[in-house]
Amino acid sequence: MPAKILLLILLFHRREFLQLNQTIQFVNCITISKDVNNFTFNNHQRLIMELGLYTFADLPPGDNNISTDTNQRLRNLMEEIKLADELGLDVFGIGEHHRPDYAVSSPAVILAAAAVTTKQIKLTSAVTVLSSDDPVRVFQQFATVDQLSNGRAEIMVGRGSFIESFPLFGYDLQDYDALFTEKLELLLELNKQEKFSWKGTFRPSFNNLGVYPRPYQAAIPIWVAAGGTPASAVRAATLGLPLALAIIGGAPEQFVPFINLYRNTAIKAKQDPSAIQLGINSHVYIAADSQKAGDEFYPSYAGVMNRIGKERGWQPLSRQQFDHSRSPQGALLVGSPQQVIDKILYEHELFANTRFLAQMSLGDMPHKNILKSIELFGTIVAPAVRKALNK
Amino acid sequence: MPAKILLLILLFHRREFLQLNQTIQFVNCITISKDVNNFTFNNHQRLIMELGLYTFADLPPGDNNISTDTNQRLRNLMEEIKLADELGLDVFGIGEHHRPDYAVSSPAVILAAAAVTTKQIKLTSAVTVLSSDDPVRVFQQFATVDQLSNGRAEIMVGRGSFIESFPLFGYDLQDYDALFTEKLELLLELNKQEKFSWKGTFRPSFNNLGVYPRPYQAAIPIWVAAGGTPASAVRAATLGLPLALAIIGGAPEQFVPFINLYRNTAIKAKQDPSAIQLGINSHVYIAADSQKAGDEFYPSYAGVMNRIGKERGWQPLSRQQFDHSRSPQGALLVGSPQQVIDKILYEHELFANTRFLAQMSLGDMPHKNILKSIELFGTIVAPAVRKALNK
Repeated sequence: MPAKILLLILLFHRREFLQLNQTIQFVNCITISKDVNNFTFNNHQRLIMELGLYTFADLPPGDNNISTDTNQRLRNLMEEIKLADELGLDVFGIGEHHRPDYAVSSPAVILAAAAVTTKQIKLTSAVTVLSSDDPVRVFQQFATVDQLSNGRAEIMVGRGSFIESFPLFGYDLQDYDALFTEKLELLLELNKQEKFSWKGTFRPSFNNLGVYPRPYQAAIPIWVAAGGTPASAVRAATLGLPLALAIIGGAPEQFVPFINLYRNTAIKAKQDPSAIQLGINSHVYIAADSQKAGDEFYPSYAGVMNRIGKERGWQPLSRQQFDHSRSPQGALLVGSPQQVIDKILYEHELFANTRFLAQMSLGDMPHKNILKSIELFGTIVAPAVRKALNK
Repeated sequence: MPAKILLLILLFHRREFLQLNQTIQFVNCITISKDVNNFTFNNHQRLIMELGLYTFADLPPGDNNISTDTNQRLRNLMEEIKLADELGLDVFGIGEHHRPDYAVSSPAVILAAAAVTTKQIKLTSAVTVLSSDDPVRVFQQFATVDQLSNGRAEIMVGRGSFIESFPLFGYDLQDYDALFTEKLELLLELNKQEKFSWKGTFRPSFNNLGVYPRPYQAAIPIWVAAGGTPASAVRAATLGLPLALAIIGGAPEQFVPFINLYRNTAIKAKQDPSAIQLGINSHVYIAADSQKAGDEFYPSYAGVMNRIGKERGWQPLSRQQFDHSRSPQGALLVGSPQQVIDKILYEHELFANTRFLAQMSLGDMPHKNILKSIELFGTIVAPAVRKALNK
């Protein structure tokens, strides 16, 4: 086995040297146990985790001045991204929505603005609702962002947690999964080769055509986003794609079987271990102390969860439930810097995830609070997490 | 009549005060003769013309290193836009193509990057191939650019001079005109109201849905681009939209009847005179003297015209034809600053156009030559043209 490990280390490091603008560092190398039921990261062979942010660019609901508020929200968003970049965070993600309570329906357009105002941070959608879009247009837009950012673009594709894009673009929710399957297949093909023929059900065929521009990276990293549906883990693993799991409720521990399913399926499919990456996306807010963090975040968080929950038939959220969710084994990372450090490390123990993305800028959270929280994330939480994982 | 003129002046100035980031200045006011066969701008009542640039972001044909060259081309493009903004030019436009010899297939993505790196310049597509796109996505993307630029976005829509997008997005060239008609109708509707129902032939219907984000301006300026087809002039005039005419061959004088058709149709349709604007788009290159300008521009220009011409069955271009086209009554504006000033003013005498856009960055023109030409345009040509029209 040692020869194999050496080979893997060399292969990984070769990828590292070749890949520009790569901020993630391999301290050693991950190994995959031959026993598919016992996939583990060894302590001395772990990957330093990427740390980043994502947002949906929320707007006040029932907005009376939507144009002005959108303008202010996008200015704030650009400041958030710039600060995250300056603090050395690794990733910034932007979600796609087609509703009056979110300011962004074209993540790539925003990411292009971010590309030329940042230096090192990776820029991703979170998520691109691929099912209701044309993979050719998506690829063209992100290839352009990739060029403008010198290779920092990524696409996080999802079937869509919000589904308002389906009637707007003429898709049937009955095709929810089939749409995603076919469109992801085309997107991956576009990422692999410049010119080919395509025949599908949901998008016009074409014959030996090229799609331009080509990206700066050899291929744009494409992540599959999931909310816990086992089929999503199997899909990502079977396709050899990184998986981004949203944990926004329940207990993180409950997701261990889901993660195992992803890794075990990948091993069975003999995927390249470097492709099998795992990101965790969760709600995060950091203040000087736990009480302050909870008091500042609760009203906005409850506002959003109750508004969205009403559409989806969830029970209203109480402060007690909120505080329970902030406890050491809950899904929320809302507290002092040390509490957030502890929970990120706790989840890393559970999942050995290679990425953690924080959704801070939520609902009507005041901009100055968000900037402060991002600053605490970048200056206290991130260095402490990196140090702990580097030991 | 004086009372009516006074009312018009007041109405125009009211628009002026309300519209942010408006760089065009009304010196006095245009008046429209009641005689539709004699539409004129009076000398003391003319509009200062907007001056700007546009490009298709050309790449070397038969490119062996398309990713690297795209990256360099887009860096150069961002420099061109920044310089144009710093020089106080009024407009920058970017074309949409889906071929390996052009770097931009998503103008809005590039314009978003320009939005946050410029201060005053208007940012437009030139053109958006609306026939093969979804007006909802186009509107969303440009509304986002409009927000990022605080109201400087515009859309120039065309049926498509290049037609490679039709097979790529599954459209039939037999529907060339019907596609454009229907999609423009939807785009204009999206620009007018937030929420409505839509039923058409070429794009899925929707029922009482809103489209977001909303733009920063009350509505995004939408120009119709044309190459000289009379029906295009009639369409723009009937819809009350500004018209952008590409003059890239023949003699400008030949287009006077086309312009008259546009204005007369607009008058008959009782359009708001402020909506009836005319832009001229032409090939331009400026150097210290005429000989230098011709010698520097000819190889790239001929390269492009012969390459595109081969696809379209044009005769190859000779240097003699090129020089003829540079003569005072020809379509090319390639020469010394004074020659270009003279031709812009000559065309303005013919057309009373309210905008002139120069396509300089063409084919494999060296970047430093383009920057020099833009600088001469901004520092010598533009001030002289404005001064002459201001008299």
